[in-house]
Amino acid sequence: MFTDLYELTMSQAFFRQGMSATATFSLFTRTYPPNRAYFVSAGLEDVLDYLSNLNFSGRAIDYLRAMGIFSDDFLEFLRGVRFTGSVRAIPEGRLYFTDEPAVEITAPLIEAQLVETFIINQVNLQSMLATKAARCVWAAQGRGIADFASRRTQGTDAALKMARASYIAGFSSTSNVLAASIYGMPPAGTMAHSFISSFPSELDAFRAYAASFPTRTVLLVDTYDTIAGTWNAVQVAKEMEADGHHLTAIRLDSGDFDQLSRQVRKILDDSGLDHVKILASGGLDEYELETLVNNGAPIDLFGVGTKAGVSADAPWSDMAYKLVCFDGRPVMKLSPDKVSLPGAKQVYRTKHSSGMFAKDIIALDDEELPGGLPLLEEVMKDGRRTGPPTALEDVRMRFQEDFSDLDERFKVLKNPPRFPVSVSGKLERLTAEVREKALGVNVSDSD
Amino acid sequence: MFTDLYELTMSQAFFRQGMSATATFSLFTRTYPPNRAYFVSAGLEDVLDYLSNLNFSGRAIDYLRAMGIFSDDFLEFLRGVRFTGSVRAIPEGRLYFTDEPAVEITAPLIEAQLVETFIINQVNLQSMLATKAARCVWAAQGRGIADFASRRTQGTDAALKMARASYIAGFSSTSNVLAASIYGMPPAGTMAHSFISSFPSELDAFRAYAASFPTRTVLLVDTYDTIAGTWNAVQVAKEMEADGHHLTAIRLDSGDFDQLSRQVRKILDDSGLDHVKILASGGLDEYELETLVNNGAPIDLFGVGTKAGVSADAPWSDMAYKLVCFDGRPVMKLSPDKVSLPGAKQVYRTKHSSGMFAKDIIALDDEELPGGLPLLEEVMKDGRRTGPPTALEDVRMRFQEDFSDLDERFKVLKNPPRFPVSVSGKLERLTAEVREKALGVNVSDSD
Repeated sequence: MFTDLYELTMSQAFFRQGMSATATFSLFTRTYPPNRAYFVSAGLEDVLDYLSNLNFSGRAIDYLRAMGIFSDDFLEFLRGVRFTGSVRAIPEGRLYFTDEPAVEITAPLIEAQLVETFIINQVNLQSMLATKAARCVWAAQGRGIADFASRRTQGTDAALKMARASYIAGFSSTSNVLAASIYGMPPAGTMAHSFISSFPSELDAFRAYAASFPTRTVLLVDTYDTIAGTWNAVQVAKEMEADGHHLTAIRLDSGDFDQLSRQVRKILDDSGLDHVKILASGGLDEYELETLVNNGAPIDLFGVGTKAGVSADAPWSDMAYKLVCFDGRPVMKLSPDKVSLPGAKQVYRTKHSSGMFAKDIIALDDEELPGGLPLLEEVMKDGRRTGPPTALEDVRMRFQEDFSDLDERFKVLKNPPRFPVSVSGKLERLTAEVREKALGVNVSDSD
Repeated sequence: MFTDLYELTMSQAFFRQGMSATATFSLFTRTYPPNRAYFVSAGLEDVLDYLSNLNFSGRAIDYLRAMGIFSDDFLEFLRGVRFTGSVRAIPEGRLYFTDEPAVEITAPLIEAQLVETFIINQVNLQSMLATKAARCVWAAQGRGIADFASRRTQGTDAALKMARASYIAGFSSTSNVLAASIYGMPPAGTMAHSFISSFPSELDAFRAYAASFPTRTVLLVDTYDTIAGTWNAVQVAKEMEADGHHLTAIRLDSGDFDQLSRQVRKILDDSGLDHVKILASGGLDEYELETLVNNGAPIDLFGVGTKAGVSADAPWSDMAYKLVCFDGRPVMKLSPDKVSLPGAKQVYRTKHSSGMFAKDIIALDDEELPGGLPLLEEVMKDGRRTGPPTALEDVRMRFQEDFSDLDERFKVLKNPPRFPVSVSGKLERLTAEVREKALGVNVSDSD
């Protein structure tokens, strides 16, 4: 029942008209959010889980019956609905671009219609978060990044998906323990200001933490004053060394990170603690990371939270799930600025001899474009997955491979150029034909 | 386990130090997101449910043990953890302002610390969405608004919470069937472009829908061309009238809504269909609604989706959960721009004789400010709710009452003035004292 009411009302109308033929829907994004020139595919695993388990419980049917607008025969039909169709998709971790279908669903019309809400919701969110995370990883130039976003993501589902999506794009860990346990990722975490405040003094707090976690102590130094806190950390680090342990890192969480990290690095180095790392967190996003890294701030690790976890500079994208073929007939939409390409599709990626991406070509599913790598893979057939889920580590690897083959100029954080994507001649001709026909039937009489 | 790892590592350090005394944490927002001058309280119900059910499963304990950083005695302690504390909160639906605690948790330190992640996540999200929705309702000046956001919210949890939060703030319905069934709200929905495209012509699609839902037909007219679509809708409306039914509304979903709504209104009126309403949806937020309504566009109903569902112009807020008292000792944080007020608090609201809000005063919990209405109410004691949940309709009513008592100048959509909030003399003195003391212990030695 995580669906929009209109999926159900449309389905009843289809049911009443006996429209049970096969439909293909295409999930794609029309335009780039600000400063984006690529998307990272993510969310497919949840889509496949959802489709594998699609059904309406007796309680759901009772609720719908009580609404008084659905017929008994339709509700009985709904009770038996399962997803029996096929799914072709760009695998998670791969890069894709505007207009390219991330997922194509081919199934009996009602089945394909009913699943719209969940599919857009998940792929939109997860691709958006993975893309934001990829930008952070790029800006960090090799420094580790931990996902600290759980407290400020838009809900619990987003927190879990942020952990997974950011790991795909190269984050090193997540603070969310549930996400770490579900997805088999490394969990990470240190202490909050409340920990420090609970003790009579900062020094007492640092000592207590070091006593509990002698092999993985990261001390938060800004509760009262970052420099004074660093001196307290130095004192505790010395006490730890006397016991044969090393302080792992200190964490900056407010103030001017560039200036503070240099002051703190000097204090640590002058105290013989050059092995103690500096972690910075608090309000960071890819733009801040880029500035800090380019300026040479001696920060070893970043904790990235709120702004990445809500994709703050681009919290939504224009992702749509559009009918492109019904009963063998290619269809499209002509609404202003919302035109869609008709027909089931394939995306071919061509590469330079260096291995770098050259351009993508959106073609019809039954076309073959020699020399192009087809991006859409069949991942579900007759309602069953065609193979086991890809291990998260492999998805992460797939992203790394794709990302390293994308020219750097598309990765710049501000106003990147557009990656070249074209439409095959055959698809272009079909689009013109379907457009003509739709206009002829639906519009010209009234002009 | 929906918690940050640091809640657990801090808890182990507290456990090891025998720090089991009572702590009070305060949940508040330091600064307004852009263009905001108030917050709508929402999320408390989920907090109370969560606290009522707090526990770590055997599987969770096993997972934590396998991490190899937690001691067996702490893990055994964790297995038995329940929430046994008390909660004071500003009830859902009420307005509140910066620095005012929306929720205060008082409990044994570890219990109060462990719940941080979930509490911030939910109250932050739900207050943010309710506030965004309140802005839309204000801009719509009495026109009905349906929540159409589910496809584009940041995850499934956010979709459900958007439905509820926007209903609190005055939306009329939600498109999300699951949300409607869980929260007992009116569901709403019509048709998507794919419905139209599935049929050989738009006219066929309209007829099929009308046949299935003769008493609640809303026709989407922009799939090919809005004006031509309206003429098709007129034709179907006439056919419905012949059968004794009325077309409910037509829906615009793209283009210039101001201009199109006037053209479409004229076509409908000239066709004797002045009872047919006009619904507009597609990219709308409070700023667009205000412009359309102020310009007098003849739109009767709005469907609001993406931008409201992600609070697009302010997708995050600076909400924090800070320790304010431990073992009878008031505490605070001094980090730059992140200073917190010490001590358990009460917020008193004073009103003008007209009933309009005059100002709020943040005071200590044990102060009495004659003439002020205390906003924080005890909603949980000894780990149990002090009463049944407030019915959603009553929360909605509470919002309406509060909102009508807030001067219009704080509701303007751009650059509103700040609502006056002051700090009691006693709290001000305590803040100075605690600050002095913290600086004395933690900072001055190293300056």
